[in-house]
Amino acid sequence: MDYSTNDSKSTSKKKVVAVVGGGLVGNLNACYFAKRGFQVEVFESREDILQAKIVKGRSINLVLSHRGRQTLKHVGMEDTIISKGIPMHSRMIHALNGTQSPIPYGKKGQYILSIDRANLNKELLSAAETYPNINLNFANKLLDWSTETGAMTFVRAEGAKEEIQADLIVGCDGAFSAIRKQFLRQSRFNYSQTYTPHGYLEFTMPPINGEFAMKPNNLHIWPRNTFMMIALPNLDKTFNCTLFMPFEEFEKVTTGDKVIEFFQKYFPDAIPLIGALLRGIFFRLPAQAMVSVKCSSYHFGDKCVLMGDAAHAMVPFYGQGMNAGFEDCLVFNEIMDQLKDFSAVLPEYTRVRVPDDLAMYNYVEVTYFILLTNSDVNSKWFLFRKYVDNFLHIIMPRTIIPLYTMVTFTRTRYHKVVKHWHWQDKVINQGLLFCAAVSVAGGSYLLQLWSRLQALKSPF
Amino acid sequence: MDYSTNDSKSTSKKKVVAVVGGGLVGNLNACYFAKRGFQVEVFESREDILQAKIVKGRSINLVLSHRGRQTLKHVGMEDTIISKGIPMHSRMIHALNGTQSPIPYGKKGQYILSIDRANLNKELLSAAETYPNINLNFANKLLDWSTETGAMTFVRAEGAKEEIQADLIVGCDGAFSAIRKQFLRQSRFNYSQTYTPHGYLEFTMPPINGEFAMKPNNLHIWPRNTFMMIALPNLDKTFNCTLFMPFEEFEKVTTGDKVIEFFQKYFPDAIPLIGALLRGIFFRLPAQAMVSVKCSSYHFGDKCVLMGDAAHAMVPFYGQGMNAGFEDCLVFNEIMDQLKDFSAVLPEYTRVRVPDDLAMYNYVEVTYFILLTNSDVNSKWFLFRKYVDNFLHIIMPRTIIPLYTMVTFTRTRYHKVVKHWHWQDKVINQGLLFCAAVSVAGGSYLLQLWSRLQALKSPF
Repeated sequence: MDYSTNDSKSTSKKKVVAVVGGGLVGNLNACYFAKRGFQVEVFESREDILQAKIVKGRSINLVLSHRGRQTLKHVGMEDTIISKGIPMHSRMIHALNGTQSPIPYGKKGQYILSIDRANLNKELLSAAETYPNINLNFANKLLDWSTETGAMTFVRAEGAKEEIQADLIVGCDGAFSAIRKQFLRQSRFNYSQTYTPHGYLEFTMPPINGEFAMKPNNLHIWPRNTFMMIALPNLDKTFNCTLFMPFEEFEKVTTGDKVIEFFQKYFPDAIPLIGALLRGIFFRLPAQAMVSVKCSSYHFGDKCVLMGDAAHAMVPFYGQGMNAGFEDCLVFNEIMDQLKDFSAVLPEYTRVRVPDDLAMYNYVEVTYFILLTNSDVNSKWFLFRKYVDNFLHIIMPRTIIPLYTMVTFTRTRYHKVVKHWHWQDKVINQGLLFCAAVSVAGGSYLLQLWSRLQALKSPF
Repeated sequence: MDYSTNDSKSTSKKKVVAVVGGGLVGNLNACYFAKRGFQVEVFESREDILQAKIVKGRSINLVLSHRGRQTLKHVGMEDTIISKGIPMHSRMIHALNGTQSPIPYGKKGQYILSIDRANLNKELLSAAETYPNINLNFANKLLDWSTETGAMTFVRAEGAKEEIQADLIVGCDGAFSAIRKQFLRQSRFNYSQTYTPHGYLEFTMPPINGEFAMKPNNLHIWPRNTFMMIALPNLDKTFNCTLFMPFEEFEKVTTGDKVIEFFQKYFPDAIPLIGALLRGIFFRLPAQAMVSVKCSSYHFGDKCVLMGDAAHAMVPFYGQGMNAGFEDCLVFNEIMDQLKDFSAVLPEYTRVRVPDDLAMYNYVEVTYFILLTNSDVNSKWFLFRKYVDNFLHIIMPRTIIPLYTMVTFTRTRYHKVVKHWHWQDKVINQGLLFCAAVSVAGGSYLLQLWSRLQALKSPF
């Protein structure tokens, strides 16, 4: 239902939604609220997001999968965004000796997309601009907001302060959300921010003779126990490489020679591909920190709600950060469809979304350490289980669904994904154990049979 | 070494330490810094802590044990405080049928103390007042402080603002620390605040005929699966009772009759002891929330350090909150003794103290759930293990030390306590398993022997 239209009958005034944060989730949210007929005011602290250089501490590429696509689809943007993305069908694992082994993400035809953050931002802004009931307010930095009245105080670029009142504040202002600060004062508000011991560093792998330096339709991964490198393809035929490594390891690499030495030891196959740029990659910017944020609840009274990284920032390893953030808009919209009473929407959003995000959050945390401590033994078991899972998925497509498939290619609620995964993991492991026991028993029976036959043949 | 004296040679001015928060840890800290010769300014937001009523949301009694006592001893306060406390030698477990079973806290003669918070506060304030180099500033509420200059802005009761500069800020302003807010802006600052699903409610059990209503030298506990009640003795022969229960359970008890019904079901033996006051206990104040706070690091540059609940608020079940907070002062003091360079003291304090507090924090969290889900079966196992542990402690006093003893009656570093406990838990469980296996094997051998003897005797 359209709450604003309903309201407009009595007050002849549209309900105002203030979206704080004009990043990816903010602009997409603006489109969602505008589509429902609200008057939407977007406030962004930066001057103009299109003019702004790539923001320090933000990854250049993003991974788009089913949840994100479904959210874009609802506002008619899926095709535009996909056309500018590069499909990645497999992880391409780079061993130390340079051999590359693909591990498909799903069934044939299933893929995730490497998306350019700057372009996605531009497209979302352009989409927001097409709605007459969206106002984009740049260079408006939130100073504070009142949890009693809902009034927000913004500081303009020139230093002037302005007070703004809205019927609903939607905090989409990222992992370091200014809106969320007031939530900390709420009684029984749970909050955690945890930095990983790992930092990350981004650099470019240029094209070779005008072509991609590696197979483009893959997410390239170099797992190296306590650290790893990944590379995602871009439309301009470069790869964007990211090195994840404990901060103290970064600190050891202090000169260009040490960079070369480090790559010779761990990523020798990447040296000729990165080329002359390699010596300098550690010294343009310091390694960036990665933060995980979780909190509950996501709403404050009937005034304010958090979405995207402001509610649940995740480490990037499972490519779910943006997809979960986008899905927030879709889930909120679905709840507005279901509930007639707007005052019930915010608590319902917290009730539905918190357990899902926590499940995904915890899962990503665990995966993070599994990925990084991916020794050869583990990785053989990982590969073996992948094959077993995929095989079982083919013969029982509704019962056994690989975890990655559920997360990436469905909209199954995250907490159900994790629950189903625990169940099927137990079942499969028990099955494998049973098979192993049967083959050991069978083998020893055959061995016994064989030695009896030998005994029969014996001349003695 | 005395940093202030050293410094005074060159600048002829004492170094100023600002202690923000005039509660227990704040005032004790003030004495510690004053004893080293610093000029100490204590800032407290309340009018006068001695005049202030018992603060809502703060427990009336506290448990003092070895770590806290050692800290008090260093500033000559141990005896005064102990003389006003009531020794508790055992937990006294109240079963549903009213039977009481004591479980000693340690060896004969070992005890913890029930301390009146208001009196302890008063004694600490009086101690602080005896130092000429301590200034107590009441009704000074911290508005903000600058991480660059270290300047603090306080608001006075009459509304005037004042800026104060100190060489070191010591944040002792509790679980909701205003000093800590700036820490959240530090890169790679880990922080979490987690509310338990349980709230707590305090009420008084009056004396009966001028005497304690129950045995006074015990901490009385009524464990009831998802909730529990405890009672600590006071000098005025009352007991201070605290009921810990999930908030939704509190909400069900809406009338005086329902209180009686609830007590009849779960704490029938306490009904005559609480008497006429019982009907009203749920309606004076709402159930209070309990928060756990953990963070790292504990220092910000060379300007500021957190101690007590501001650094590590814990749920109260292990009686370590105040003791750990007091020990912070002692640990910081020990580090100042060891290190000549004052700039190295703050990072060293973080390095030493964070792992200890986290270990204790995690341990208390786990214990919390074990205590509350203490079903009869678990509690028999708990009692059995207690006896085994105590027995082994008697015959091997340096190798096997009950967990509670290490936490409560030693200054063994918390992380070592937890590590040693895991080790001995494994050893004891393996030992018990071995004994069980041996007795089963021995038993079946005897059974076999017996049936053979029977066979020999058989007429057939």
